[in-house]
Amino acid sequence: MEKNKVYAGIDLGGTKILAVVLNEQGAVVNQAETPTQAQEGSEAVISKIIGLLRDCLSSSHQLESIGVATAGTLNARDGIVAYASNLGWSDVPLGKRLEEAFGVSVNLENDANAAAYGEWAVGAGKGTQHCVYVTVSTGIGAGIISSGRLIRGRDNSAGELGHITVDMNGPRCLCGNVGCLELYASGTAIGRRAAELAAAYPAKASALLAKAAGGAMTSRHAAEAATEGDELALQALREAGSALGNGLVSIIHVMNPEVIVIGGGAAGIGAPLLEPMKEALADRGISSMTTGVRFASPILGKEAGAIGAALLVADQR
Amino acid sequence: MEKNKVYAGIDLGGTKILAVVLNEQGAVVNQAETPTQAQEGSEAVISKIIGLLRDCLSSSHQLESIGVATAGTLNARDGIVAYASNLGWSDVPLGKRLEEAFGVSVNLENDANAAAYGEWAVGAGKGTQHCVYVTVSTGIGAGIISSGRLIRGRDNSAGELGHITVDMNGPRCLCGNVGCLELYASGTAIGRRAAELAAAYPAKASALLAKAAGGAMTSRHAAEAATEGDELALQALREAGSALGNGLVSIIHVMNPEVIVIGGGAAGIGAPLLEPMKEALADRGISSMTTGVRFASPILGKEAGAIGAALLVADQR
Repeated sequence: MEKNKVYAGIDLGGTKILAVVLNEQGAVVNQAETPTQAQEGSEAVISKIIGLLRDCLSSSHQLESIGVATAGTLNARDGIVAYASNLGWSDVPLGKRLEEAFGVSVNLENDANAAAYGEWAVGAGKGTQHCVYVTVSTGIGAGIISSGRLIRGRDNSAGELGHITVDMNGPRCLCGNVGCLELYASGTAIGRRAAELAAAYPAKASALLAKAAGGAMTSRHAAEAATEGDELALQALREAGSALGNGLVSIIHVMNPEVIVIGGGAAGIGAPLLEPMKEALADRGISSMTTGVRFASPILGKEAGAIGAALLVADQR
Repeated sequence: MEKNKVYAGIDLGGTKILAVVLNEQGAVVNQAETPTQAQEGSEAVISKIIGLLRDCLSSSHQLESIGVATAGTLNARDGIVAYASNLGWSDVPLGKRLEEAFGVSVNLENDANAAAYGEWAVGAGKGTQHCVYVTVSTGIGAGIISSGRLIRGRDNSAGELGHITVDMNGPRCLCGNVGCLELYASGTAIGRRAAELAAAYPAKASALLAKAAGGAMTSRHAAEAATEGDELALQALREAGSALGNGLVSIIHVMNPEVIVIGGGAAGIGAPLLEPMKEALADRGISSMTTGVRFASPILGKEAGAIGAALLVADQR
């Protein structure tokens, strides 16, 4: 029987492991997931990964490579997870173990970069050469593709878009920098700013306070109140969107992309965040660079990281 | 006679044309320059380029390719200089003309990017994979090499480091953005800030005012006064260096480079500018990303652009 070449991708997260198998056209032909149960130790997790991937492969598949997307600090060249706090791992030779089990080359990749690559290659950025994938959630991160190649940097840490300075006279960020973009435009920042505004203008704060119901104010509360036209919620989102636009002006001026994909939970807020963002871009960007940049939402869903990890190895062959 | 393969590079500037011929090892084996005399029109300038390059080639040379570094807007794929204000050119098919004259492939490149590539490949960045080349002069620009490849972007405009935001509440820049890095850290900004400080503190301004001698204050005046320990000059340079450090924090967080090469006239000011820059980096950068970034000065001199243009074509073959 003629075998079909396939490429495996694993997204190794703190709570679940997701495996995908892609055909030569980059389409998902099989996938599966299982809880990580990291507390059982790295050997148990590696056995789970091996078992999960075996379940995804059929006798008609000829496995060509494995890509693994994972958080933490990676020594990608040696296939080692140097440190991953979400897994409790230090110096785990994951690449070597998978190579021994399957007899194919294995590549480890930062999970945010893998997801960006997946969205670029077969998702919202398909067909372009220059793509910035931004996630706006608790924090802000990015994966950057330039001339069809993932920007990794010296130790796979490129794309820390949340920690570019937008106000060098601003407050200190936990990262050590000051006035970081994510202090103004992340989901965390939106919740914090909505709470500040509610405290400053109690007469206007009833809707926001009702959403929070005595708990901590979050970006979700602000988003809900904004859909009802709440003034303070709209202000918090407008300020965040404007700051996000300013951060994107900087990345557009540095990378000169064709498309910007904006994902992550907070990005789901939509127009109250994204319209002020686009206004800031139109007002502040170098017009020859901002004009024609297409904005898109991610389309791959939770499989983006696993798909991207699989494609990164396949494309490098 | 056995011929030696050589690679030509042209730096086409508004005042002079510089040609270099490189051997297969990337070493300059011949070079020449001539005034551009752009006022004579594009045909005359193209004839000058052809003549200059012919003068640089000997009968033992087998020309393999030509790279041209030039300012302005390029349609690199079609070899067209779309618009170059310093030459008064619109839609000049320079690539095609040189191809016809020499029978080899020709590549046009943004001059700042070409210089960055040259410094990376055979200059101060040699041996690295991830390099940011920053020029601090009248304005601030950058050329970025990541994983051994020049970052060009959608229309060869990547690397506008002078126009990333460092203060989103700052003043408007001529580019349209606000709080751009070069409003605080360019040579122009240093001269402006020194003049402001001299006006604000006339009792301390005698050294600065004497340097300017009634003319416009420049960064050179500030640099000269600083070498004599002048307080206001040192303050202007400290503020500019700190802002430059902040801009570099952003680019380090995005690109995760190994080496940053700092060139351009204002960079020659040295310690009074560069020490505050390094202090800002140490204070504000994510330590795993800033630690180990090497700082270097350019070593290629005025030939950097021509050398880089030659190597860019050679390396792509």
